[in-house]
Amino acid sequence: MRNILLIGAGRSASSLIRYLLEKSKSENLHITVGDLVLANALKITQNHPNTSAIVLDIFNKESRQSEIAKADIVISMLPAHLHIEVAKDCIIFKKNMVTASYISPEMQSLDAEAKANNLIFMNEIGLDPGIDHMSAMKTIHEIKEKGGKMILFESFCGGLVAPESDNNLWNYKFTWAPRNVVLAGQGGAAKFIQEGTYKYIPYHKVFRRTEFLKVEGYGKFEAYANRDSLKYRSVYDLDDVLTLYRGTIRRVGYSKAWNMFVQLGMTDDTYIVDESETMSNRQFVNLFLPFHPTDSVEIKMRLQLGIEQDDIMWEKLQELDLFSRTKIIGIKDATPAQMLQKILTDSWTLDPEDKDMIVMYHKFGYILDGEEKQIDSKMVCLGEDQTYTAMAKTVGLPVAMAAIHILNGTIKTPGVQLPITPEVYLPILKELEDYGVIFNEIELPYIGYNPDKVVLKI
Amino acid sequence: MRNILLIGAGRSASSLIRYLLEKSKSENLHITVGDLVLANALKITQNHPNTSAIVLDIFNKESRQSEIAKADIVISMLPAHLHIEVAKDCIIFKKNMVTASYISPEMQSLDAEAKANNLIFMNEIGLDPGIDHMSAMKTIHEIKEKGGKMILFESFCGGLVAPESDNNLWNYKFTWAPRNVVLAGQGGAAKFIQEGTYKYIPYHKVFRRTEFLKVEGYGKFEAYANRDSLKYRSVYDLDDVLTLYRGTIRRVGYSKAWNMFVQLGMTDDTYIVDESETMSNRQFVNLFLPFHPTDSVEIKMRLQLGIEQDDIMWEKLQELDLFSRTKIIGIKDATPAQMLQKILTDSWTLDPEDKDMIVMYHKFGYILDGEEKQIDSKMVCLGEDQTYTAMAKTVGLPVAMAAIHILNGTIKTPGVQLPITPEVYLPILKELEDYGVIFNEIELPYIGYNPDKVVLKI
Repeated sequence: MRNILLIGAGRSASSLIRYLLEKSKSENLHITVGDLVLANALKITQNHPNTSAIVLDIFNKESRQSEIAKADIVISMLPAHLHIEVAKDCIIFKKNMVTASYISPEMQSLDAEAKANNLIFMNEIGLDPGIDHMSAMKTIHEIKEKGGKMILFESFCGGLVAPESDNNLWNYKFTWAPRNVVLAGQGGAAKFIQEGTYKYIPYHKVFRRTEFLKVEGYGKFEAYANRDSLKYRSVYDLDDVLTLYRGTIRRVGYSKAWNMFVQLGMTDDTYIVDESETMSNRQFVNLFLPFHPTDSVEIKMRLQLGIEQDDIMWEKLQELDLFSRTKIIGIKDATPAQMLQKILTDSWTLDPEDKDMIVMYHKFGYILDGEEKQIDSKMVCLGEDQTYTAMAKTVGLPVAMAAIHILNGTIKTPGVQLPITPEVYLPILKELEDYGVIFNEIELPYIGYNPDKVVLKI
Repeated sequence: MRNILLIGAGRSASSLIRYLLEKSKSENLHITVGDLVLANALKITQNHPNTSAIVLDIFNKESRQSEIAKADIVISMLPAHLHIEVAKDCIIFKKNMVTASYISPEMQSLDAEAKANNLIFMNEIGLDPGIDHMSAMKTIHEIKEKGGKMILFESFCGGLVAPESDNNLWNYKFTWAPRNVVLAGQGGAAKFIQEGTYKYIPYHKVFRRTEFLKVEGYGKFEAYANRDSLKYRSVYDLDDVLTLYRGTIRRVGYSKAWNMFVQLGMTDDTYIVDESETMSNRQFVNLFLPFHPTDSVEIKMRLQLGIEQDDIMWEKLQELDLFSRTKIIGIKDATPAQMLQKILTDSWTLDPEDKDMIVMYHKFGYILDGEEKQIDSKMVCLGEDQTYTAMAKTVGLPVAMAAIHILNGTIKTPGVQLPITPEVYLPILKELEDYGVIFNEIELPYIGYNPDKVVLKI
């Protein structure tokens, strides 16, 4: 028996554990699921004979170390900032480790020690980061192996509601952490490169400079720019590329509507609103509008945002019950962002039968034999239900697959890693196809942003 | 002879020292001016017999303490964050101290020690903070003494160019630290109260919600909201007031034009622009506009900002040479804010003959004998030249006057103070009138923001 210790039995663990249980016989696995709350662990192990469910307090050093010592590999599905204690123990007890989180500087600092001990600390192997790395690097490597030179890479991903459950005017519901949705784009200007020119978009304009995407069978989407599109420039070996852009996918019209909240200041998370607890939705809105003794909140809002009488933007606001006098925020010492999140959660929570959907879209532009070419690669993954969501599948399956490949020695390069090498992405992308994570590549003539090759000096 | 130690011989010291020299005979003063650069100190002491000019490095503890030990009072005109070392020495050597800066938490923490030693640490006694405190508190106290109840307080201040030197389309030149002008409004939402309702304006909307002000003989001005209008609510004893608003004064049209930079993201000071040093003004602008192979920077800018062909906004941009291909930023690793500051400085630097102007405007709303009333109090101060600027006068004179009053024992309340008591503001406001700092008060019917007294439930 090989022992897998899975720490954290949250929402993204469902597909992960189902996969491991499926493989537990053929791969000879015993899976110990540790969570702060035993019920969470029990819920996903479901008394399966090859599992143990245990209480595990990550801050209790003794029990943490005793469990890690017993494992052959550790999967940490904890919040990102909690991996590091686990990682340090994995060095002490010489254990491999897998996470779906971004490599933090603290994690990166363990690279030399991990290598010295021949340990694999595989990170960023969920959806985004994760499947995006793998699917992008596979195609980039293929292009380069053919002798192509990369000139453009754009990558988009979004967690959305499945078409059959898409029944509100925003074409959006919360399928993942609502807080991240409310704070999206904050923390600095969005940065990217287009045709060799650096571009910066301030937060309050991010949702007004979108790109459109079409996915066969699913229609049209839009994407707004992520904060730092250049983060993986060197990691992907794309230092010379002329266009580098990463974005978040939404249904068309979402960004223009979301921008209303941004413009009013409702997404601000940096200060506490006085009397937030007793405030109605309507009073919340009025915080961001000029005082007037008689003009209604509605007319002030329309004027402030330039919303005409028959504008769909208005209907979107109405749908959220934003002007309700009776709905109370009920959160003490809340920031505007927290108050807005409460209002949105009232409206955007999935119904029990709702399903989610993941959309990923890459564009690769390259020159091969003097000719400019483009490959578009698209993936849509649908959730089964609210346990085996598309999000849980796409985040959890690559983690589980990586763990088994590491146990089996087919992924073997030591160090603090992310999945950008064929050793990792080839077997995992292939196996993901069996679970409905399928990228469709189409070749098309290169378009880019300068189709006529105009040489202009700015 | 009473020894005054003046630390820091910068731009705001000119009127301060001239005043002290004028009084040096009658008040029996010797003034030691210490600066890191001897030439700065010599320039303002001008070999006057009652002065010494010395090199003083504030980080050299020995020389700092030896000078402080010799003084009867210390005036610190250092940058705000440097006062604290001086203040600690003033405790050790039992010296009074005056600064024009905001009371920092570190300064405030010396309050008990200052009181225990019967020392006066007078702060915030320049223009803003300073003259604003004094002139506001004088009228507020007068209203309260008559039995009035305050219901509204609005206070505005601005450093501008004098009408005779006002010859650009922005009606603005840098008369004080340009960096503060570029960063104005940043660091959090503007917060104030109108008619009992909290209001918040996000940074990117601050310059689009202005108020208008009229000053007899000087025409119309506008004001945008300061970040925290509630800062002095308790200090001024205005906890029950329904409207509390502080703003910065500019000429009409400035804010709408400035907002163009805000919207584009040019005032961002949080990231470094790649290749900033070699970039032209035009390339700088293009950073914030979408890529297009042939559309000019100008047409993209007009579209982005909705500027029509004959809009004065456009002329304002042209006046700054914003689209120049030949003017180079020339600053390495600069933020957008630093790059914009460079462009503005090229255009908004005072000519040798230019004069500056300070405008201050308070509105006091109150109820007396059941009747609502209002007093508007306005002050305009003009600079003499580029040494004795209105800014240097209004910042430096109250500091100098306070120092002499403390020496003479007419200001005597110990502790970390700001000028909000009659002991301080009565003599100083009176004396300031001789130097052209005169508030004109007019009584008018109360207007407020709810003239018809509509009682609406939001």
